Amino acid sequence: MKKVYRGNIVFIKKMGELTSIKNGYLVVENGVIVSVDKVLSREYENLEIVDFGNKLIIPGFVDIHLHAPQINNLGLGADLELLDWLEKYTFPEEAKYRDLNYTEKSYSTLINKLWENGTTSSIIFGSIFKDSNILLSKMISRSGLKAYVGKVNMDKNSPDYYIEETEQSLIDTEDYINEISKLKNIRPIITPRFVPSCSKKLMYGLGELAKKYDLKIQSHLSENIGEVEWVKELHPDCENYIDVYEKYNLLRKDKVVMAHCVWSNKEEIKKLKEYNITVAHAPVSNGNLASGIAPINEFKENRVNIGLCSDLSGGHELFLGKVIKEAETFGKLKWINDKNKYNYLTTLDYFYFATKGSGKFFGNVGSLEENYDADFLVIDDSDLSDLNDRSLDERLKRFIYLGNGKNIIARYVNGIKIEKPF
Amino acid sequence: MKKVYRGNIVFIKKMGELTSIKNGYLVVENGVIVSVDKVLSREYENLEIVDFGNKLIIPGFVDIHLHAPQINNLGLGADLELLDWLEKYTFPEEAKYRDLNYTEKSYSTLINKLWENGTTSSIIFGSIFKDSNILLSKMISRSGLKAYVGKVNMDKNSPDYYIEETEQSLIDTEDYINEISKLKNIRPIITPRFVPSCSKKLMYGLGELAKKYDLKIQSHLSENIGEVEWVKELHPDCENYIDVYEKYNLLRKDKVVMAHCVWSNKEEIKKLKEYNITVAHAPVSNGNLASGIAPINEFKENRVNIGLCSDLSGGHELFLGKVIKEAETFGKLKWINDKNKYNYLTTLDYFYFATKGSGKFFGNVGSLEENYDADFLVIDDSDLSDLNDRSLDERLKRFIYLGNGKNIIARYVNGIKIEKPF
Repeated sequence: MKKVYRGNIVFIKKMGELTSIKNGYLVVENGVIVSVDKVLSREYENLEIVDFGNKLIIPGFVDIHLHAPQINNLGLGADLELLDWLEKYTFPEEAKYRDLNYTEKSYSTLINKLWENGTTSSIIFGSIFKDSNILLSKMISRSGLKAYVGKVNMDKNSPDYYIEETEQSLIDTEDYINEISKLKNIRPIITPRFVPSCSKKLMYGLGELAKKYDLKIQSHLSENIGEVEWVKELHPDCENYIDVYEKYNLLRKDKVVMAHCVWSNKEEIKKLKEYNITVAHAPVSNGNLASGIAPINEFKENRVNIGLCSDLSGGHELFLGKVIKEAETFGKLKWINDKNKYNYLTTLDYFYFATKGSGKFFGNVGSLEENYDADFLVIDDSDLSDLNDRSLDERLKRFIYLGNGKNIIARYVNGIKIEKPF
Repeated sequence: MKKVYRGNIVFIKKMGELTSIKNGYLVVENGVIVSVDKVLSREYENLEIVDFGNKLIIPGFVDIHLHAPQINNLGLGADLELLDWLEKYTFPEEAKYRDLNYTEKSYSTLINKLWENGTTSSIIFGSIFKDSNILLSKMISRSGLKAYVGKVNMDKNSPDYYIEETEQSLIDTEDYINEISKLKNIRPIITPRFVPSCSKKLMYGLGELAKKYDLKIQSHLSENIGEVEWVKELHPDCENYIDVYEKYNLLRKDKVVMAHCVWSNKEEIKKLKEYNITVAHAPVSNGNLASGIAPINEFKENRVNIGLCSDLSGGHELFLGKVIKEAETFGKLKWINDKNKYNYLTTLDYFYFATKGSGKFFGNVGSLEENYDADFLVIDDSDLSDLNDRSLDERLKRFIYLGNGKNIIARYVNGIKIEKPF
């Protein structure tokens, strides 16, 4: 099955180089891009052309860290810091997902919002409840969007009403992995909540499961000063936060995404690079929870892989355009703070992180190059125009700064048009 | 003419104390609030009631610093710092307002956007062109919104195509003041662009005009490190940036609004307090132009009057909810940076700045207390709700974090409902 899409195609293949093709052609075969060009080569001439006119065609956004069972808390609790916020807002809400009816209603909203905001792929923390996570995975699979979905594990330092027994946590995780193994577009991911809420035995067991099923792993790292100090108290034998994950075999090379890394020092950065960990940068959340500014400029100089995320509901912006904008602002503020030590990055650099940077974790995702999954958005930015002519570069930046999900008039995943899920 | 409005009334009379009245009554007489209460007192019982049901009634937003002739640049140029941004994006655009046709088209868009975003009062920088500014003032007056509108003055360090002769600048300013003196809801304000673009003679002349007509004054102060150093070079006899304005009689007590104040030191803060200057805090702009974080927490401890602003188009967010959110984030980042020296402020504190804090400059504006101008918004936040019951406090915060102009279903200024202007 081949199809041709025509429009203004904009994407970033290599950081620092924007590809923008005015009235270009995107040819898709079996869900994969086979040609992207200014002219339509003769072999494709007889194919049906979907013509998007003056609209923009950009890669779908890839949100690599968000907490599904926090959807009802979106935009609340920004007056608290991480540990207080967990106790007061987050844990009580997540505990409600024991109820599958509540789960279904809430996740319908979540998946609609991901769709609306152009997030075609995401990496998700679920709740601790196996059945609720299975339902979430099935619902996303049915929607046509792509995701890694993890069952959260936590067996200590958690409230009585939202905690697991170690053995049961591991059994449920393995059951969950098997139950969703055949779902289209969905992959399981090992998901210890964060070091403070996992016993050594649990972390060790999760490392074993990751190895047994060859799974990827996600967690939190060095988000907040109070949290980093707490981890040090809990594991005095580990020099840095990341060493705890390393000790329990949770750092699988090329297969780990770690959210935040706000307080990662030089040694931690070295390990991020060594294990080729993808950092999920969450500036909106890091502002809301008074966590701080992650050293993204320094990560970049050290060639650490960087992606962007909403961190729902620590972050309240599911539209990654707003996250790109905030990341850019944070980078500039850090640049001032560090007395210009590392160059700050630009809008297009962060757009790269929100698409190809994040997408690498999924394979050939997040770009509109040949051999990449045909995951793209069609943008009608006519309500963002002004009295002057603007380049494609300026139109993309303006969509990022001023646009929202309402400007997205179509979403495609593997070449299939995705309709509003619920 | 008396009228009663019913709904969930939310406002801040005194910083730190939110007034929220579920199903309350707001009584307006001749454009002024005469009663706000949980019950409708007997004397008003026979009046017509406009019932907004479960909607929120909040004060109109007051945006105390924005550049009207930059409306077409909204969301562009965030990759540049202040001085480069002025040369490349700002001056060429402002120069177009010599053309009254361009002026009218562009300002129709601007005024519609202020209306859409619930900005009922604003303090505006125009261009250098007298006639264009007169047209802007007339258009805002016709819309029913309130504004201070200033003709910008600049006679040095400006491009050939956008600069004035000193004498002519002063003559045009005086003409402008007289021309708009009778317009409803509009007041002129003396507007030297900033120290580097004004000669000593021009500043002195503007100070005289301010005195002659008893006018308020607006300008920029200590926005960006490069700018502050430049001012020091230009005026080596002045210890701090603010001293230049003081020297040329441009600091009239209670009558000055200064944008940014990012790099104001202890002595400058002392003068901000001494002259009771209102600081126009512009976090979105200060991020975009890599200016830095204003010491708002410190201003607050020193009882400096603070308001919020979009700083269009250094800032790209005309919805002050987004500016409140960004101000809160900036305050937290500074708190971390300063090792918790000054407490950070909360969402409601910045909501206060965006309403009553900013509104003070206009008189009794920005609150829903008795004797205040009946400038208010009606908010339909039903699309922001979730499966849980939320308090009025949470609903207001969520409107700020997740809402936008689309949630505003009615705007009133002095008790008159304002329809879309253009």
